[in-house]
Amino acid sequence: MKFNKALLIGINETQLGMPYWQRINGLIKNKVFLPKDSPKISENLKTTDCLLVGFGIALTKEDIDIAQNLKYIGVLATAYGKIDTNYAKKKGITICNLPGYSTESVAEFVLAVVLEQIRGLEEGKRRVRAGDVSEAGILTLEIKNKIFGVIGLGSIGSRVAEIALGFGADVRYWSRNKKKKEEKKGIKYESLDSLVLKADILSINLAQTPETEKVMDKKRFLALKKGSVVVNTAPMELVDFDALAKRLAKKDITFIFDHSDEMKKEDLQRLSKFENCVIYPPMAYITPEAAINRQEMFTSNLENFLKGKSTNAV
Amino acid sequence: MKFNKALLIGINETQLGMPYWQRINGLIKNKVFLPKDSPKISENLKTTDCLLVGFGIALTKEDIDIAQNLKYIGVLATAYGKIDTNYAKKKGITICNLPGYSTESVAEFVLAVVLEQIRGLEEGKRRVRAGDVSEAGILTLEIKNKIFGVIGLGSIGSRVAEIALGFGADVRYWSRNKKKKEEKKGIKYESLDSLVLKADILSINLAQTPETEKVMDKKRFLALKKGSVVVNTAPMELVDFDALAKRLAKKDITFIFDHSDEMKKEDLQRLSKFENCVIYPPMAYITPEAAINRQEMFTSNLENFLKGKSTNAV
Repeated sequence: MKFNKALLIGINETQLGMPYWQRINGLIKNKVFLPKDSPKISENLKTTDCLLVGFGIALTKEDIDIAQNLKYIGVLATAYGKIDTNYAKKKGITICNLPGYSTESVAEFVLAVVLEQIRGLEEGKRRVRAGDVSEAGILTLEIKNKIFGVIGLGSIGSRVAEIALGFGADVRYWSRNKKKKEEKKGIKYESLDSLVLKADILSINLAQTPETEKVMDKKRFLALKKGSVVVNTAPMELVDFDALAKRLAKKDITFIFDHSDEMKKEDLQRLSKFENCVIYPPMAYITPEAAINRQEMFTSNLENFLKGKSTNAV
Repeated sequence: MKFNKALLIGINETQLGMPYWQRINGLIKNKVFLPKDSPKISENLKTTDCLLVGFGIALTKEDIDIAQNLKYIGVLATAYGKIDTNYAKKKGITICNLPGYSTESVAEFVLAVVLEQIRGLEEGKRRVRAGDVSEAGILTLEIKNKIFGVIGLGSIGSRVAEIALGFGADVRYWSRNKKKKEEKKGIKYESLDSLVLKADILSINLAQTPETEKVMDKKRFLALKKGSVVVNTAPMELVDFDALAKRLAKKDITFIFDHSDEMKKEDLQRLSKFENCVIYPPMAYITPEAAINRQEMFTSNLENFLKGKSTNAV
């Protein structure tokens, strides 16, 4: 079996390598690429049986009603929050995503940016380049025996917690549900308010949902321990910017994040002014290992659906 | 019991905090501080019963013969290679050092500088500061599943290996003696030449001895895998500079080190010219946690000797 007509929204050809496109082309008779705001989406939805969408693409009930021939939605991302999956499933459509393809990439990035910060690496490199080989006054800290908090113990949060355990940290977590399996490894549950208060290092690894938006609010930013280092590799929608800016102005915490590309320019400029706010491009998920996982899962999800044994259906 | 006269060579008062000096002053009637090249060392050695020395201080047979009242040598460092300990012990002198005070500090630093390098953190920060939030083209790598080699499986090397295991690396080691206990954790033995050839990431954690000098020689630098990242937190005497410079010129490996303060200026300038040579001040061991360990062990070694139950005697 093959698909007749794949509609690709918000995906461009450079996002997958040639070997993957070759495999996909063997499963599909025709392909139509459209940007996410294209006025041609509706008319193409009518005739497509295979819809492939990039990160953050919305699909409403109305869209799904239009797509009368649709059998399969393939998401080239982990998140699919803007797709009305319940309605699609009712209509007999299979939706497959890419869970966990970047788990390792993001988890290692969290440790990387924490260590870069708490070991003063930028200052160290700068000094030697300026001809100064003195270590005097560089402020540092060890992870061992520190309270390492993880907010959200999904696949990425769990992996961050495991690696932090390897460093000998006192790892605590908050998650919507208690995780007995993780607790057996020595990761202790805390209420969110208690975790924010106690953590020396805090990693935010929640998915963005209506419930998690601005979960880092004024009260929680004010409660953060003096000297603590907070890393957010999740979307910045989890953060109240006013509250963050207010706490950064006290110069007694460090906030690190990488979803800088999804922010309003004025918000980014405002946070950039704080020396204790360390900002990266969205690079937590970009390892070549994650890129291979992403392409392989996306392609094999398609193949497996056509073989009648779907993988990663949501 | 108290010491009559402590001679302190190559130690200055700022190296220990007030609470530690107060404890030490309670154990000693008089203190004489001398720099390591002082011409007054000999005459003071004659009368001292307690010799306290800083990092890298030499004590020969002749020195020990002069020090006829000497009972105790306290070393404010882990290394004591320049002290003729065998001769001193024959004379009934107890020598105590500070084993492992900086183990955690150095081991975490190794992971910090590796991750900083393989996640392109400097470039990421630079871009955002320049107003560019694109991650395109930043080269990265994961530690998981990579061959992580450790040369020298003493206390620091073992801890580096353990943390790397937590990242899911394939950890291999070479050490003078096979370490069965470490192997049970999943750390595999390799010959040194094989380890150099296979490692994606390589951490050098050998003590400096006549046998280990220039252990990283021409053959081994040429054998390093393309793209590998080598970290040396041990003294640079382990490295043949000509061989290192030759391999760096090929631009296909990265070499990271922190003992930049102990090098000749011309050697440092030569290595600084390579973009793929990342140089830090001697900051692997400088965490406040390590500083407390160092002062506490040094002081309690003295106290315990006087109580007749020496700790950390070599």
